[in-house]
Amino acid sequence: HQGLNIIKNDEYVDPENGTFFTRTEAEGPLVDCEFIESEVKKVLSENSFVKCTVPQKKKIILMGTKDYHCYTDILTRNHFNQLDADILCAISNRDSLREITERYGVPYSFISTKDLKREDHEAKVAEVIDQFEFDYIVLAKYMRILTPSFVEKYHGKIINIHHSFLPAFIGANPYRQAYERGVKIIGATAHFVNNELDQGPIIEQGVMRIGHQHNVKQMAAAGKEVERDVLAKALKMVFNDRVLLNGNKTVVF
Amino acid sequence: HQGLNIIKNDEYVDPENGTFFTRTEAEGPLVDCEFIESEVKKVLSENSFVKCTVPQKKKIILMGTKDYHCYTDILTRNHFNQLDADILCAISNRDSLREITERYGVPYSFISTKDLKREDHEAKVAEVIDQFEFDYIVLAKYMRILTPSFVEKYHGKIINIHHSFLPAFIGANPYRQAYERGVKIIGATAHFVNNELDQGPIIEQGVMRIGHQHNVKQMAAAGKEVERDVLAKALKMVFNDRVLLNGNKTVVF
Amino acid sequence: HQGLNIIKNDEYVDPENGTFFTRTEAEGPLVDCEFIESEVKKVLSENSFVKCTVPQKKKIILMGTKDYHCYTDILTRNHFNQLDADILCAISNRDSLREITERYGVPYSFISTKDLKREDHEAKVAEVIDQFEFDYIVLAKYMRILTPSFVEKYHGKIINIHHSFLPAFIGANPYRQAYERGVKIIGATAHFVNNELDQGPIIEQGVMRIGHQHNVKQMAAAGKEVERDVLAKALKMVFNDRVLLNGNKTVVF
Amino acid sequence: HQGLNIIKNDEYVDPENGTFFTRTEAEGPLVDCEFIESEVKKVLSENSFVKCTVPQKKKIILMGTKDYHCYTDILTRNHFNQLDADILCAISNRDSLREITERYGVPYSFISTKDLKREDHEAKVAEVIDQFEFDYIVLAKYMRILTPSFVEKYHGKIINIHHSFLPAFIGANPYRQAYERGVKIIGATAHFVNNELDQGPIIEQGVMRIGHQHNVKQMAAAGKEVERDVLAKALKMVFNDRVLLNGNKTVVF
Repeated sequence: HQGLNIIKNDEYVDPENGTFFTRTEAEGPLVDCEFIESEVKKVLSENSFVKCTVPQKKKIILMGTKDYHCYTDILTRNHFNQLDADILCAISNRDSLREITERYGVPYSFISTKDLKREDHEAKVAEVIDQFEFDYIVLAKYMRILTPSFVEKYHGKIINIHHSFLPAFIGANPYRQAYERGVKIIGATAHFVNNELDQGPIIEQGVMRIGHQHNVKQMAAAGKEVERDVLAKALKMVFNDRVLLNGNKTVVF
Repeated sequence: HQGLNIIKNDEYVDPENGTFFTRTEAEGPLVDCEFIESEVKKVLSENSFVKCTVPQKKKIILMGTKDYHCYTDILTRNHFNQLDADILCAISNRDSLREITERYGVPYSFISTKDLKREDHEAKVAEVIDQFEFDYIVLAKYMRILTPSFVEKYHGKIINIHHSFLPAFIGANPYRQAYERGVKIIGATAHFVNNELDQGPIIEQGVMRIGHQHNVKQMAAAGKEVERDVLAKALKMVFNDRVLLNGNKTVVF
Repeated sequence: HQGLNIIKNDEYVDPENGTFFTRTEAEGPLVDCEFIESEVKKVLSENSFVKCTVPQKKKIILMGTKDYHCYTDILTRNHFNQLDADILCAISNRDSLREITERYGVPYSFISTKDLKREDHEAKVAEVIDQFEFDYIVLAKYMRILTPSFVEKYHGKIINIHHSFLPAFIGANPYRQAYERGVKIIGATAHFVNNELDQGPIIEQGVMRIGHQHNVKQMAAAGKEVERDVLAKALKMVFNDRVLLNGNKTVVF
Repeated sequence: HQGLNIIKNDEYVDPENGTFFTRTEAEGPLVDCEFIESEVKKVLSENSFVKCTVPQKKKIILMGTKDYHCYTDILTRNHFNQLDADILCAISNRDSLREITERYGVPYSFISTKDLKREDHEAKVAEVIDQFEFDYIVLAKYMRILTPSFVEKYHGKIINIHHSFLPAFIGANPYRQAYERGVKIIGATAHFVNNELDQGPIIEQGVMRIGHQHNVKQMAAAGKEVERDVLAKALKMVFNDRVLLNGNKTVVF
């Protein structure tokens, strides 16, 4: 069709709900996505969802608090055109990442939580976000829990990195929890955010071995490397349109 | 002292409870362990625990149900003198592992659960166990939950392999739970058994990557390889006296 | 076609030689493979290779020397019907694996190398092999180099496990080589055998971390676990018809 | 002694050359290193090497060519005081990393190779280096082979990251070599540089799985993540005085 050359084709049928997922990557002359979508829909059942996209950089909002490892990894990849995304702006509830952000030429909004109720703080954050047309909000160790209404407003667009191998160690201080439990492996999880804490669809996970000799601080330091790698891998997959949602799970082609 | 040559020396101080752990491995002429223990105790604080052991094969009771992968791995290593243990007998709540067990010349007790209350079944199991002087009971996918009184009776001597990356997916059907949650990595955990389900001190853990395309059955099949490897590693460490208990955690030297 | 339901479909185009590989797994009523092959060929270019197979246990010859770990793993999986293969017979240049082999009811041919030239020994081995219609010869740590004529005779049918992360440490004593070089990771490689030592198409590889404290013997002991796992994974893929040859490389679907 | 509290103590005896290595980490009031060294030497054999160091940031020269991933990772860690080192200056044979380097406030010397013999180029590089008192030269994907005399001049001080799992794929284009060989795992190696290409003492290695579907470019892109992680781990160990040389191997405590 239309002189397209198929590069990669993946398929998956969920055996439990019978849903069929497929993704075809093709190269060729500029395509008319609407035409392709309508043609493909004709041969599929009525309630099928078809989307044709031309690869292009996603537009993202970067949110952080004070940890620099995931945050600057994203800034750096963006700077060297390896992120498959453009960072529209960065938002933080602290001011400590301002300097590094501005060195990379990215606008930085510090929105203090001081004297603000959670909803009011989020309203200010949303005000900044809503100035942009964006594809994803990336929480690069943004250390505040979001309210249901905020999550609802940006449903399916918020990606978080959690510093544990979910579903182990949900919530606060996962490295402290891991230390107390005496696990021999720690991990990190990149996931879409939904309204149950750390329960959204998992995109990617990674792990590393630790031992009795790691205290909480050493575990946290070591874990940062995994967090950064897992978030980077997840973003790459999402920004390349390789992640499909299947209920509360993901299909990663 | 006594012409011993130190091969390996490990130390660890738990920063939270101040306990000092050390393990020294030495070779030399036959030692008088009681003498060494009393000499070492002299230089330590009063409530120190000192144990000197001469490396020798541990004596174990092997328990299984129907899964063969961990169970026969232990039988095979034992047969080729690579287990650092002697299997005194095997006990099962099914009869399906009898043939393979007897091929390896290990006595096999099938203790049916039919028409028996849990306590009564366990009493029969204990009756077999108590015929032996043993060091450890190894649950090689023994698929019954043990009562507190059974666990108490053999406190610190029961080693289990759980088919998840604890503390994720405690209890029944961890692969089903993992599938439902959509994790990208599964694992297995070898631990000492205590009276909280799957909460005992962790000895070793292992993981493997999976993807959306793994259904529960494929996950379980793939996971068996990790279960077997993790249990084997844990047993090696325990049987070589390299695992020390630190509250509900282990120090593995 | 023919009421088949496609379960899995994989495709790959080698960008360097332009070869297109595809594998479709389908379930349905008993199929006429010849018919399917001729139908599929009609729509493909003339020099295409099409093969339709009904999943069935492969028939294998197991060869070993004295190491038991890969060898008995295969015997055990076979015994519990988890190998996707039937072992027709076992052949060894030593007699030490006879007992375990016969416990599993597999015929064992000990073919001594004593006073025999390499060619004459291989002729005797081939004599045993040629009594059987078989699919693959599995070298489960068979510690003799095969002559080109032997390899040629069974071209594409011999699978070997090499105890290094190829192409590192080709040839004899890879763990000694690894020790001398001071590597921090060791590995194992399952590959088809061709006429260049340890140069055949790689099917699967695995690794494990080691450290300065591992001597050659400890490295070899630890490495056995990887060897066994890698060979098992490779055999599973091959026996399920998921491994295609692409020159000196494999496509594993 | 001197009121020091031992935090970590490690020992290793090389069984082949009989050398005993030990490292003790202690905390306490400011120590007199010369006194400690002379005291420790008294109880050791004459040709022992004893070194007492107070933890302090190492001083490093950073060298790169055009790849940013290892290079900016080091700049970033340095900026956030997580490198355990201070970057004295950056030197490159290209000008493309100037902008990012200067954003981080690190002086950048571009030394073109244009119209220069290798020795002459190196002389100019050495001229910059020799303006500084430094501990290590870090080659963060510096893509030029150094001459023996340059390596000799800075013996034991040059750390390199090689983009293969050494000793596999020595020299140029390791990902191309890996692709041609059809390996299923790729890796990276951080090592001290000596006068045999990619043969110096290995500090750290890492790997990642790939498959037939990775072309050379994708392999190289994926491998960058491993390169960066391996170099970062190696530098952390070296900068914390945890890496001892044992002939052409390292002891990493």
